[in-house]
Amino acid sequence: MKSHTEYLWFNTPNRRDYLRITDEIDDIVTKSKIQEGFCLVSAMHITASIYVNDAESGLIEDIDEWLDGLAPFGKDYRHHMTGEDNGDAHLKRMVLGHQVTLPITEGKLDLGPWEQVYYAEFDGRRRKRVVVKIIGE
Amino acid sequence: MKSHTEYLWFNTPNRRDYLRITDEIDDIVTKSKIQEGFCLVSAMHITASIYVNDAESGLIEDIDEWLDGLAPFGKDYRHHMTGEDNGDAHLKRMVLGHQVTLPITEGKLDLGPWEQVYYAEFDGRRRKRVVVKIIGE
Amino acid sequence: MKSHTEYLWFNTPNRRDYLRITDEIDDIVTKSKIQEGFCLVSAMHITASIYVNDAESGLIEDIDEWLDGLAPFGKDYRHHMTGEDNGDAHLKRMVLGHQVTLPITEGKLDLGPWEQVYYAEFDGRRRKRVVVKIIGE
Repeated sequence: MKSHTEYLWFNTPNRRDYLRITDEIDDIVTKSKIQEGFCLVSAMHITASIYVNDAESGLIEDIDEWLDGLAPFGKDYRHHMTGEDNGDAHLKRMVLGHQVTLPITEGKLDLGPWEQVYYAEFDGRRRKRVVVKIIGE
Repeated sequence: MKSHTEYLWFNTPNRRDYLRITDEIDDIVTKSKIQEGFCLVSAMHITASIYVNDAESGLIEDIDEWLDGLAPFGKDYRHHMTGEDNGDAHLKRMVLGHQVTLPITEGKLDLGPWEQVYYAEFDGRRRKRVVVKIIGE
Repeated sequence: MKSHTEYLWFNTPNRRDYLRITDEIDDIVTKSKIQEGFCLVSAMHITASIYVNDAESGLIEDIDEWLDGLAPFGKDYRHHMTGEDNGDAHLKRMVLGHQVTLPITEGKLDLGPWEQVYYAEFDGRRRKRVVVKIIGE
């Protein structure tokens, strides 16, 4: 078994941002030289998500509006007694999930025609990290 | 390390359908001859889910009604500017998630007494694919 | 490739409880002696979640209140025709998810500074099981 571990860093200009990272993951898979395996992509900060969906700008706005309906920014969360203002971000990240496992087949990400990997930031303007870990052979 | 990869195809008669696929996954695990490992089951189309829950028809109707409350079909999503009418399906699939990792122990799926694997279709009547990839030994 | 499998049992005093289990997982990782790999933590009962978020008591109360808003306890779910009263628990567990995959790097859980692993119980006062399975080398 082989393994390969890298970290991606993000510092987004806005509080909420949605960044397509499929190409970055693809490059790491190529570098790993692993032919058959799993690639875990996982947000290491607890106010961000990793998800797979369409690279379509209208849909991304739909997702953002929908999430803010389910877990509104600016609500008076108990978590804010700690001095934070990001209670909504902790909840939003759980709707989309914080990690995906991507299959690697014949040395490439084994994705469907419209599957794109996204980093979703819900409390930006801070340095945040994502772990990309591949195991396989 | 060994690996085994198969694809399941679905073309459901209705827009929304919930199909129990535990037996299909079980057969693939047996065929792989892997004794200890992980089995990834992941929807390759972005308007479908893979989830684990109860095989109880009332609950499945509850899930469907609940999801349609959270992300209603027929709403005027921005995504529909592209000509699609499936904005709700992209959102519903994120609530249930699009993949599960099933442990394999002593050559069998290591599931609890009521754990059943489901394919949930939110934009059916099209051919859709699911990847089943096992790694282990 | 090596593998290591253990099971954790829970029997919480309340219907809903949120238990930090990072240390238990950490101990299992150490015992496995696996240096590079993946640790799957997965709820084997279908009214519980495994999730990663902050160990902050206010946030945990926010999560509980938020989930009960999205899938209220005491509603008349179709699932209750079976004699059960836990329809809400089946839905809540799907918002938070039922499993996480934790990277292991240099023999340790490779987590961000605030990542904590939680067992969320939504239908407690019964014995429930969680599988912890590690594969790697």
